[in-house]
Amino acid sequence: MYYHDKRLQYPVRVETPDPVFARQLQQAIGGIEGEIRVCMQYFFQAWGNRSPNAKYRDMLLHTATEELGHIEMLATAVALNLETAPVSAQETAAKDGVVGAIMGGKSGREAMEGMLQRHILSTGLAAYPANADGVPFDMSHIYASGNLAADMYCNVAAEATGRVLATRLYNAAHDPGMRDMLSFMIARDTMHQQQWLAVIEELGGHAGTLPIPNSFPQEKENQKFNYNFFSTSADGSPPPAGRWTQGPSLDGKGEFSVVQNQPMGEEPVLGPARPDSGAEAQQIG
Amino acid sequence: MYYHDKRLQYPVRVETPDPVFARQLQQAIGGIEGEIRVCMQYFFQAWGNRSPNAKYRDMLLHTATEELGHIEMLATAVALNLETAPVSAQETAAKDGVVGAIMGGKSGREAMEGMLQRHILSTGLAAYPANADGVPFDMSHIYASGNLAADMYCNVAAEATGRVLATRLYNAAHDPGMRDMLSFMIARDTMHQQQWLAVIEELGGHAGTLPIPNSFPQEKENQKFNYNFFSTSADGSPPPAGRWTQGPSLDGKGEFSVVQNQPMGEEPVLGPARPDSGAEAQQIG
Amino acid sequence: MYYHDKRLQYPVRVETPDPVFARQLQQAIGGIEGEIRVCMQYFFQAWGNRSPNAKYRDMLLHTATEELGHIEMLATAVALNLETAPVSAQETAAKDGVVGAIMGGKSGREAMEGMLQRHILSTGLAAYPANADGVPFDMSHIYASGNLAADMYCNVAAEATGRVLATRLYNAAHDPGMRDMLSFMIARDTMHQQQWLAVIEELGGHAGTLPIPNSFPQEKENQKFNYNFFSTSADGSPPPAGRWTQGPSLDGKGEFSVVQNQPMGEEPVLGPARPDSGAEAQQIG
Amino acid sequence: MYYHDKRLQYPVRVETPDPVFARQLQQAIGGIEGEIRVCMQYFFQAWGNRSPNAKYRDMLLHTATEELGHIEMLATAVALNLETAPVSAQETAAKDGVVGAIMGGKSGREAMEGMLQRHILSTGLAAYPANADGVPFDMSHIYASGNLAADMYCNVAAEATGRVLATRLYNAAHDPGMRDMLSFMIARDTMHQQQWLAVIEELGGHAGTLPIPNSFPQEKENQKFNYNFFSTSADGSPPPAGRWTQGPSLDGKGEFSVVQNQPMGEEPVLGPARPDSGAEAQQIG
Amino acid sequence: MYYHDKRLQYPVRVETPDPVFARQLQQAIGGIEGEIRVCMQYFFQAWGNRSPNAKYRDMLLHTATEELGHIEMLATAVALNLETAPVSAQETAAKDGVVGAIMGGKSGREAMEGMLQRHILSTGLAAYPANADGVPFDMSHIYASGNLAADMYCNVAAEATGRVLATRLYNAAHDPGMRDMLSFMIARDTMHQQQWLAVIEELGGHAGTLPIPNSFPQEKENQKFNYNFFSTSADGSPPPAGRWTQGPSLDGKGEFSVVQNQPMGEEPVLGPARPDSGAEAQQIG
Amino acid sequence: MYYHDKRLQYPVRVETPDPVFARQLQQAIGGIEGEIRVCMQYFFQAWGNRSPNAKYRDMLLHTATEELGHIEMLATAVALNLETAPVSAQETAAKDGVVGAIMGGKSGREAMEGMLQRHILSTGLAAYPANADGVPFDMSHIYASGNLAADMYCNVAAEATGRVLATRLYNAAHDPGMRDMLSFMIARDTMHQQQWLAVIEELGGHAGTLPIPNSFPQEKENQKFNYNFFSTSADGSPPPAGRWTQGPSLDGKGEFSVVQNQPMGEEPVLGPARPDSGAEAQQIG
Repeated sequence: MYYHDKRLQYPVRVETPDPVFARQLQQAIGGIEGEIRVCMQYFFQAWGNRSPNAKYRDMLLHTATEELGHIEMLATAVALNLETAPVSAQETAAKDGVVGAIMGGKSGREAMEGMLQRHILSTGLAAYPANADGVPFDMSHIYASGNLAADMYCNVAAEATGRVLATRLYNAAHDPGMRDMLSFMIARDTMHQQQWLAVIEELGGHAGTLPIPNSFPQEKENQKFNYNFFSTSADGSPPPAGRWTQGPSLDGKGEFSVVQNQPMGEEPVLGPARPDSGAEAQQIG
Repeated sequence: MYYHDKRLQYPVRVETPDPVFARQLQQAIGGIEGEIRVCMQYFFQAWGNRSPNAKYRDMLLHTATEELGHIEMLATAVALNLETAPVSAQETAAKDGVVGAIMGGKSGREAMEGMLQRHILSTGLAAYPANADGVPFDMSHIYASGNLAADMYCNVAAEATGRVLATRLYNAAHDPGMRDMLSFMIARDTMHQQQWLAVIEELGGHAGTLPIPNSFPQEKENQKFNYNFFSTSADGSPPPAGRWTQGPSLDGKGEFSVVQNQPMGEEPVLGPARPDSGAEAQQIG
Repeated sequence: MYYHDKRLQYPVRVETPDPVFARQLQQAIGGIEGEIRVCMQYFFQAWGNRSPNAKYRDMLLHTATEELGHIEMLATAVALNLETAPVSAQETAAKDGVVGAIMGGKSGREAMEGMLQRHILSTGLAAYPANADGVPFDMSHIYASGNLAADMYCNVAAEATGRVLATRLYNAAHDPGMRDMLSFMIARDTMHQQQWLAVIEELGGHAGTLPIPNSFPQEKENQKFNYNFFSTSADGSPPPAGRWTQGPSLDGKGEFSVVQNQPMGEEPVLGPARPDSGAEAQQIG
Repeated sequence: MYYHDKRLQYPVRVETPDPVFARQLQQAIGGIEGEIRVCMQYFFQAWGNRSPNAKYRDMLLHTATEELGHIEMLATAVALNLETAPVSAQETAAKDGVVGAIMGGKSGREAMEGMLQRHILSTGLAAYPANADGVPFDMSHIYASGNLAADMYCNVAAEATGRVLATRLYNAAHDPGMRDMLSFMIARDTMHQQQWLAVIEELGGHAGTLPIPNSFPQEKENQKFNYNFFSTSADGSPPPAGRWTQGPSLDGKGEFSVVQNQPMGEEPVLGPARPDSGAEAQQIG
Repeated sequence: MYYHDKRLQYPVRVETPDPVFARQLQQAIGGIEGEIRVCMQYFFQAWGNRSPNAKYRDMLLHTATEELGHIEMLATAVALNLETAPVSAQETAAKDGVVGAIMGGKSGREAMEGMLQRHILSTGLAAYPANADGVPFDMSHIYASGNLAADMYCNVAAEATGRVLATRLYNAAHDPGMRDMLSFMIARDTMHQQQWLAVIEELGGHAGTLPIPNSFPQEKENQKFNYNFFSTSADGSPPPAGRWTQGPSLDGKGEFSVVQNQPMGEEPVLGPARPDSGAEAQQIG
Repeated sequence: MYYHDKRLQYPVRVETPDPVFARQLQQAIGGIEGEIRVCMQYFFQAWGNRSPNAKYRDMLLHTATEELGHIEMLATAVALNLETAPVSAQETAAKDGVVGAIMGGKSGREAMEGMLQRHILSTGLAAYPANADGVPFDMSHIYASGNLAADMYCNVAAEATGRVLATRLYNAAHDPGMRDMLSFMIARDTMHQQQWLAVIEELGGHAGTLPIPNSFPQEKENQKFNYNFFSTSADGSPPPAGRWTQGPSLDGKGEFSVVQNQPMGEEPVLGPARPDSGAEAQQIG
């Protein structure tokens, strides 16, 4: 179970409110690279964790709980960036400051153009769980597979795309308070990339985890095709060479090679449509 | 651009059609761990690839094109498993064989219960791009971030959850043809896990890629908080020790430590609601 | 604007309530082939109709309004099929009648298995706007393009898939009341297929409407490629002959031919990733 | 910011694991009436709260944080109900106990039929954020309007549908541990219904809050039509009498009456389609 | 069943077409606070109404039918606001009038920037069922629970957020015709808020309806926790006092109190991962 | 199975990159009228084709494979249009050329306003599978009904709305390279409209295919209502005359007529709510 403190994990200051930056920050709340995603992903991985070793459930709870505080910081930042946003057609934006140079002199009607409309129309100048183009977050993005190594790679993917997003927001930002907040979040993403990769290392690295799932007897897979790069060039020209076209496989269990893709199967033959199945008469044999 | 051959990449045989296994196979077509996802993900990563080295675009095209053939195999397998599925209430399922032991004697009406209804009502006994519970695939799951290392981890995540799914389908299967097809697909997932990790290795491994994106000057992140595990225990009890709580970080640029999470920020103060913003009068300062 | 009559357009009777058939009927309410779709599609086409001739708006309103009554009939049918559905684990289903032969003797818990769970848990034994596998209807399926001929083909597509669905439901039904209701709906779909094709005919048939939109000057399209079937066989084998591979085009403006698909463009070259764009350093030129 | 305790708010025990009840419980996790919804709704209302009185933000945080623990309890309950669920076609379910009487003797293949397939194929026998028919939770259901009274009614609606769901689950349950857990959750829903209505009362009840938003000058609304029930009977027959057809309005600012709906507007006339707008030539004036 | 009149319920005039206001109006069509939602919600509540008293079905039909006319008015308003919107890059917007002052002199290309792109590309300058940021309406927002009191609160919530939206649109509007139309819609929302609350009053108010559902025997809920406010402060500091922390409960059946949240349960223990379940070998006990 | 060539089907050139046009092009990638839709629709129709005549499967594969190359061309076009798009707040757009006249002098921050934010924040200046307002493509739009004639009309609808879209993009474009690419795509849409209609002709035209499905015995439909236009005028005024109100039906099997819609059914009577179903006590008979 959970507790709260009314204070924020890290300071959130906005000197020059900017409603378009509020829109951009939404990506870090409700985007697929955002904080709702990691928060809920880590919680569901924790709650469903099956392992003789309870430490993974516990670790996941620590970090999931931290991430909840990140959503809160970002939601606060969005609201602060919307403090002076237009709510009526008659308003005129002030001309002061960095953003004023952009918004200044625009009517409310005009200043509304670049905003997320739901910031004006649906939330009363506050954040909501959608991305920077207004698409609501969809919980199908919570990856929790029941396989610890697979989940760790899902988490690395989430924190890698998350840190990419955070640095893009940093570059798009002009407010020092926002840059300070983002520099903290970028640092936390650095740590979280490390953390999930460290679990992989603790599980034995490539040799200890691959192929995922490592509990499936590898003799049941078709071992003629498990370390081959298939080329699909129409003209049979070879694919570019890389670490994956020759040499030992990363798990030490095979040798990479290149194979030209060729049909091993036949043209499939489905039965004709059956009466009563809603087909045209011409489809019924 | 692209070409086709009418034949399949690998044989698809079904000895005993089973409409419930057809349902389960849908997860590998339209599930978030499925083949549409990897196919389209690799295509979009290829088409948007920005790099002085064109080899990554090329490699991605090879594998994306292969995956398109996997969707085709699975769609064929679904249709073959639906060959004898009920389409009217009056039918009676035959009692022969493995599935007959389950379906046998059931009326059409009863045999329909465990099926995806859209297999009966919408597709005429064929596959469609949805998962095993009928939820259509949503293209927001195509991860293509513009960052090569992040994308590789997204791909590892996809192939790891994909192989986990394929082995679960293998265990759920009873038909030798289906097990043979899945043994091929499981092997290809083994290779693809290798392949994306090999790109990471080629880029220099942890040291060469972390933190992702490695093009963001690390001095701009808040370096007090980039290698610390934050504990959120309400009672301050320490988190479980792991590779991520002490020792050198994986990128060799820091040292792990543990920090008890504490509010560094204040209770946030948003401005009161503004007139004309649709709030209750009591919210307006 | 609109009016209602409390009575139904056509009688809806259910002699033997069947909660699994209630599930199947949902496809005709909230499926992409269902009645919400046609109702709302015709309304939005009417409301946005731009034409010097007001008759199309009017005609669309007539049929949209009729379709609203069809949703009502189906929702009533779903509720009647759920009259005796299980709501508690302790119940035991009666054994009488056609459905009783299936449900009979099952406990409430067991009888719940084949149902849409939201019929039990969310609606209190009534219909809701989702399909037969529980996926809610999504209004992106309302096709209203602003082009009258395109919209008519969208409507034919809707009524064709709609009648296919209705006949499949008819075949899956065992209740005479349900079959009677469906025989009415199937008849209405017959008429509506006719109706939209009759608009095409009134607009001059293929010659008068094709290519859609016919207001775009055809000399602006690349006229070397507008009546050619492109073959994508990897081995260059010819495609199957058909009405579309030779002879005059249907609009009388061209002649069909077959062309082997070949790259006319080059390998695309995107600029390298830019600094500050969140890429890996290795991607920056 | 937030803290966690590894223990649960209330005990979660399952004596007889039942994978179909696991499916039903998903509605309380990822259904629109479920706990993710209220948790996230209260958090976003708190984080965006604009009011001179900070108590509402604080109160919302208390309850949002509590609800997070309810998701955890339900996720635990789902996992425990899946402990003995089938994962391979070859298994045979044991025949002991209440559920055994249902599952007993079924093969793994057959026992899988009534389950959510993603419990088998995607999560490794654990919960995920979707409803009882497998539809993922969509964050557009987080209602946080920026209007305190509107939000309170959204919350009452959520807790009312939430308690209805919880009592339906109670009735569908057969396990004493599950009934005990649900009896706790039902009690909490009782309190939360009270809590949001108490805010309305504190704001002055109907007179103090209606019409919502009460900050919009009521003289700007068309006062001829603000307390009239509009009848849409096609034959002009009167609507049924009720508290809303006569007598003083609930806010004390008007008097209810009944009006027959009649067109006050004209048939709308849109401009014809414009050249270059993609219409058929016949639509262009 | 239903009938139509070609005329509108209330006049819809637009003096100065404004394509950005067309975008904003979309929220009232396809937003979660919009008219499709209330229309369909009231229809589904009517069609599924189970009650010995048929008056509620009838009343819901009256209002649902009225709401259909509101969607029509808004769709007309969107189309009229798009009359002069740009459709080609070469156009230049006129400079006359209020909007001309904003759009004037902009090229077609530039004037397109603030618009919903689908107004240009998909609809031919007409409305479609999506919100102001282009997200299509999703029918999962149709709340019809089978519990009359819960549904009434869902309806109050819909009309409260709906009227908040309508007043925000009024403030964002500059056109007198649009303000007149909105003043009518705001008035109707006032009435509809009243109407649903009047049902609650007719059912006996708080005492007669709470806790919802009132048909569940309250002794089955855990009566130690049904009128307590749970505090989740990490430091145990008391929550803010309110009507909900002390005094009699609103239903007269209990007394409010405050309780500090404490774990009553244990750390959950799930079984280890099972062989054949797709986990890593390290997770299997 | 499938092969690729690194070169494009047709040249894609962009002289003046325009990030807002990049946004508009997204509609042709991930919009419901776009290329992912037709590509996947034709593939699923091919893979599930049931017919004694294998030519339809083959033909569909040819065209589906071609469409995959169209997505590739469009994705390339989007990336090229984003080449000079802003990635930081500090940039200033150049003033050269057509777009420079629009973007010129704008700061990066300001130039970002009209863009899809995910082009900046999520993809690193590349395409993704969403529409021009950022809504991801949803695979429920893949229509493959199992009925060949219904599918052909779905395909005509797709190519008709697709060509409408492409001509709108042509008109919105200012770049000669983009207009050249679009002139090719418009031509291909012309052919594809022809192609699907030619299948209908080959199947015997209206007489040979209608009503769809033609395999359902027409005597089972209610033949009193299968060629009647139902009028829903509230005042009984006749509908506008058209090809569909009189004369022989298009399939030659009936005669059109007009009927005033009248209730043939009764007011529906659902059973009262049952105890244990979660209703209010007042609803239980």
